Amino acid sequence: MANLTVGVLGGMGPDATLDFFAKLLAATPAARDQDRLRIIIDNNPKVPNRNDAVAGRGPSSAPLLAQMASGLERAGAELLAMPCNAAHAFAGDIEAAVNIPLVNIIDETIEATLRRVPGIGRVGVLAAAGCLDARLYSDGLEARGIVAIEPLAQQREIFMELLYRIKSGDLGGDVRARMLALAGEFIDAGAKVIIAGCTEVPLVLAQSDLPCPLVNSTDVLVQATADYATGKRSVNDLGRATTP
Amino acid sequence: MANLTVGVLGGMGPDATLDFFAKLLAATPAARDQDRLRIIIDNNPKVPNRNDAVAGRGPSSAPLLAQMASGLERAGAELLAMPCNAAHAFAGDIEAAVNIPLVNIIDETIEATLRRVPGIGRVGVLAAAGCLDARLYSDGLEARGIVAIEPLAQQREIFMELLYRIKSGDLGGDVRARMLALAGEFIDAGAKVIIAGCTEVPLVLAQSDLPCPLVNSTDVLVQATADYATGKRSVNDLGRATTP
Repeated sequence: MANLTVGVLGGMGPDATLDFFAKLLAATPAARDQDRLRIIIDNNPKVPNRNDAVAGRGPSSAPLLAQMASGLERAGAELLAMPCNAAHAFAGDIEAAVNIPLVNIIDETIEATLRRVPGIGRVGVLAAAGCLDARLYSDGLEARGIVAIEPLAQQREIFMELLYRIKSGDLGGDVRARMLALAGEFIDAGAKVIIAGCTEVPLVLAQSDLPCPLVNSTDVLVQATADYATGKRSVNDLGRATTP
Repeated sequence: MANLTVGVLGGMGPDATLDFFAKLLAATPAARDQDRLRIIIDNNPKVPNRNDAVAGRGPSSAPLLAQMASGLERAGAELLAMPCNAAHAFAGDIEAAVNIPLVNIIDETIEATLRRVPGIGRVGVLAAAGCLDARLYSDGLEARGIVAIEPLAQQREIFMELLYRIKSGDLGGDVRARMLALAGEFIDAGAKVIIAGCTEVPLVLAQSDLPCPLVNSTDVLVQATADYATGKRSVNDLGRATTP
């Protein structure tokens, strides 16, 4: 079977999209150009801020995301991926706009976490305000009897500050140390696994930094997208969003 | 003035497209996602082999390139860039298919070479067979009174072998050493500057490897694209291809 053309809803942020593209290419090598995946990327950083949108403090991200999805489908995409966790608050709007499936980063990351560490009780989730407000990880984890430990109060403010610093290009030691400290607080609170539930997190936090497993949502989305695109997994198994 | 949306004719090869995307993002930082460039990439490695097409040994690359250009324009691109030198043999076909300008990697690289080293007599050009057969660099350089030293006979076979190894993911020491040896032969033949006139070359050859200036066509295209997209240079100055 021919590989499927992948459409990428990108630009949220651009460096996370670059990270996803680099890893998707690395996951799908071939001897000749012509045997590699066609990947159409709409790196559109103009999408209204997802965190403000979910909080009702800014315009919805949905209309532009739906338009981008539709444009990617028209350009030939047969499968969509969106390397931004918080934007999955609008997964339903995206799916309503197209006739092609979206590989849902939240669903795939939760499943990958369960496969990696069966029987876990508590999971730490490093995620942005929009992702938390929309309960993208907490609902899915709690439905499986797992307690989600997420940034609260001051932790949440710190996470958002770090997130916007990463987006502005600051990948320095201070950002790394403070992101690691947040993960450490979750581990102290009983987390047996940390989910990097925001595609900017892996730009500053690696498995080697942590004493427990780190599930990187970008890596999970890369592998799932590669598997669906190359037919290792069937897109018929991709349901509509279980997230709102 | 608002930035222009960049459309990228990519996938020739995918790793060169990734390199271009990474450098274009690095060249256009901003504090907020929303202030960064929109970049639409059609990473389409299915484009028929450019070298075979120019040599008349395979189907033309032109129809699919024209279709990709048209699709990018339809998706909102206001400016096109194509990080593949040899594919510029079809620049005229691309321009005929759209109403937006193409930043021509050959023209920009020749101009950048003249700016960097005024009054040079001989330039070494590391380029693929399609680029050589279409005389993309040699015509433009000779028109400016510069002698182009290009891979001939066995050098050409070696270059193509290295090119396809890079495309297959082999960036190892042997490939690097042999690419450097080719550049060394050009320098021995009197080249005062080496042009990396193939976007796979910079994946294995850096300025620090060479005793003379290296003009990297990917870097030149990145800077020109960033300048046109952000209005530092006017797209009105972008003519139609001077290359065929």
